[in-house]
Amino acid sequence: MFPTPPSIWTDLARIRAQAPLIHNITNFVVMNNTANALLALGASPAMVHAPEEVEDFVAISSALVVNIGTLDATFVAGMKLAMRRAKDLGKPVVFDPVGVGATAYRNRVSQELLTQATPDIIRGNASEIMALAGLNAQTKGVDSTVGSDAAVEAARRLSKAWGGVVVVSGATDYIVQGDQTATIGNGHPLMAKVTGMGCTATALTGAFAAINADYFRAATHAMAVMGIAGELAAEKQAAPGSLQLNFLDCLYQLTESAIQSRLNLSER
Amino acid sequence: MFPTPPSIWTDLARIRAQAPLIHNITNFVVMNNTANALLALGASPAMVHAPEEVEDFVAISSALVVNIGTLDATFVAGMKLAMRRAKDLGKPVVFDPVGVGATAYRNRVSQELLTQATPDIIRGNASEIMALAGLNAQTKGVDSTVGSDAAVEAARRLSKAWGGVVVVSGATDYIVQGDQTATIGNGHPLMAKVTGMGCTATALTGAFAAINADYFRAATHAMAVMGIAGELAAEKQAAPGSLQLNFLDCLYQLTESAIQSRLNLSER
Amino acid sequence: MFPTPPSIWTDLARIRAQAPLIHNITNFVVMNNTANALLALGASPAMVHAPEEVEDFVAISSALVVNIGTLDATFVAGMKLAMRRAKDLGKPVVFDPVGVGATAYRNRVSQELLTQATPDIIRGNASEIMALAGLNAQTKGVDSTVGSDAAVEAARRLSKAWGGVVVVSGATDYIVQGDQTATIGNGHPLMAKVTGMGCTATALTGAFAAINADYFRAATHAMAVMGIAGELAAEKQAAPGSLQLNFLDCLYQLTESAIQSRLNLSER
Repeated sequence: MFPTPPSIWTDLARIRAQAPLIHNITNFVVMNNTANALLALGASPAMVHAPEEVEDFVAISSALVVNIGTLDATFVAGMKLAMRRAKDLGKPVVFDPVGVGATAYRNRVSQELLTQATPDIIRGNASEIMALAGLNAQTKGVDSTVGSDAAVEAARRLSKAWGGVVVVSGATDYIVQGDQTATIGNGHPLMAKVTGMGCTATALTGAFAAINADYFRAATHAMAVMGIAGELAAEKQAAPGSLQLNFLDCLYQLTESAIQSRLNLSER
Repeated sequence: MFPTPPSIWTDLARIRAQAPLIHNITNFVVMNNTANALLALGASPAMVHAPEEVEDFVAISSALVVNIGTLDATFVAGMKLAMRRAKDLGKPVVFDPVGVGATAYRNRVSQELLTQATPDIIRGNASEIMALAGLNAQTKGVDSTVGSDAAVEAARRLSKAWGGVVVVSGATDYIVQGDQTATIGNGHPLMAKVTGMGCTATALTGAFAAINADYFRAATHAMAVMGIAGELAAEKQAAPGSLQLNFLDCLYQLTESAIQSRLNLSER
Repeated sequence: MFPTPPSIWTDLARIRAQAPLIHNITNFVVMNNTANALLALGASPAMVHAPEEVEDFVAISSALVVNIGTLDATFVAGMKLAMRRAKDLGKPVVFDPVGVGATAYRNRVSQELLTQATPDIIRGNASEIMALAGLNAQTKGVDSTVGSDAAVEAARRLSKAWGGVVVVSGATDYIVQGDQTATIGNGHPLMAKVTGMGCTATALTGAFAAINADYFRAATHAMAVMGIAGELAAEKQAAPGSLQLNFLDCLYQLTESAIQSRLNLSER
């Protein structure tokens, strides 16, 4: 239950006014997209992964976003140091377990990172969240049930075990914290035809977490803005090359009235 | 000689229906483009390079694409493991020897990779294919003759020595296997003003090889689709920034009638 | 003082005619953008960072561009070898100290690189140039004064200490060599909302330095072309996704009359 109606616009205006510095340790495929999306949102992005400097960089940043898409030993070393340092300094940590469940290495690294520092927000698609929940409740193995109901249950287990917010993104986005769930119906199927849209959602979540310490709200607001900008872009031109460009334009130009008229959010 | 007319559309429809997972170990410059091109084609791309996990990832993929554009020791280690594993599992391997001939390191790595596992399809520009053939027939050194005739002869030597398909791409694309040659006249000069179009052709070739075990056909179909989408895009707007976007849109929207009316393919 | 009016168009025509090979060791975020910008300008880009091959690659290139945006140990090793080799061969070296001043690692690496080989041209924003000048005049520490006047003074100290050209880019760009200063008023505020525009300016500077051995002129011409293409692009569509695309199109289509009518350059 929200005590008051969600104030997405207030948060977005705050990001645009403050331009919080978001420290990303992310994958090679999406670095350009997510930097541009953070800029279009109004935040200030930086991509910094070297173990020699991530701790110093976390210290001057307002949030840390860690994404394991193209992980390797150098990046993993940087992720561990950065996550621990962010927790020590009380800075929000957002984690995107790209492809967890696909290889033993991804599973092991995800587990090590979660042990290193509990993320405040985890965002993944249904299978990633189920794989991650499976790692956590190891006696159960990775849950073989499919569909969003199972993924939301996995998110709830993860949230209760780790204490943070878990986002399951897809045609419908679910934001889960303990017994609380927000559901967002914004977005467009064509977004799945542009690489890194999930990673972009994670990066934007970092920006909202930087300016709103209620991380359940921050994650919900980020996913709403992502979905609304995505559907505005897809309505401009229903093709994936154009969508990538129009998404940035729509995100940059997003207005309070567009958010109000399009928001498809329910809570329980 | 083709026993039947080429069925490019059938292959494209199969990719769109099956969304084969294509494992790419490629360069930093083009990861975003090639992921987006594979998505626009209908395939499912993944970029995974860590030696710790490439063998596991090959096992769940339908084809492996290796591209040495921005190679370094970590990536080369991943490439070797992935290529050997793909051969062991009988999965198609497509190799793009970007810049071979430019440095001794590129030559040595290319030779090591070819020794590790024979690619099913190699795609390069004329000078890369000639350099690669020169490595193979070491007593001749790199052939100094230029022009497409010389490159096609180099491709034929390579194909006969290694047993796979060799693609020489350029204003005209040549697909060579043993004594067989397909020639494609599609494409547009402006494509050379967008970085990574060759790498994108290689990635698309991986998707066609994933669903058509006749690799000569798979490579021919990929190059035809690449060229047709490129010329459609260049006709929309004759400028390189626009071309990159329009190429993805045209690839996503490519129809059977566009392929039939535009295909410029000859065989001997 | 320029002995003759600047001949930006002559240099641009020379780049388009000669397509000089520009060797970039740059960051993951902008590799695609800067490769495309160099292609749109008329140059031939290559991104090559492995210590095993950078020396060979410098030898066949016309200029070296080093950018520390996402530096790590492997890249730094490649940068050092490449810079020393470029100096030995008398090839122009352009250096972009992204984020220097933000972490001790960036400061140390920048210092090591400058000790390795003096760049012919350094380009940064005001705070980077002031941080770099602070490293140089270590007894003063990083100057805490802000504003472009202070940055231009820092650029002058750097130029006099190291002997090269220093560019401070921003709303107004300053190109400084010894007591000489060129000031460019072209560009558009929206360029700051697209990631890597500064890195792109550095890459284009490499192309101009490849064909004009007067590096003060080369840097001035590059910044002018960058600013003019950027303002043409922003006038087409005032949104950041579109700007990235339109910038490449405008750069590719840039004419002598557009340069003449828009150039906002003063010298003292």
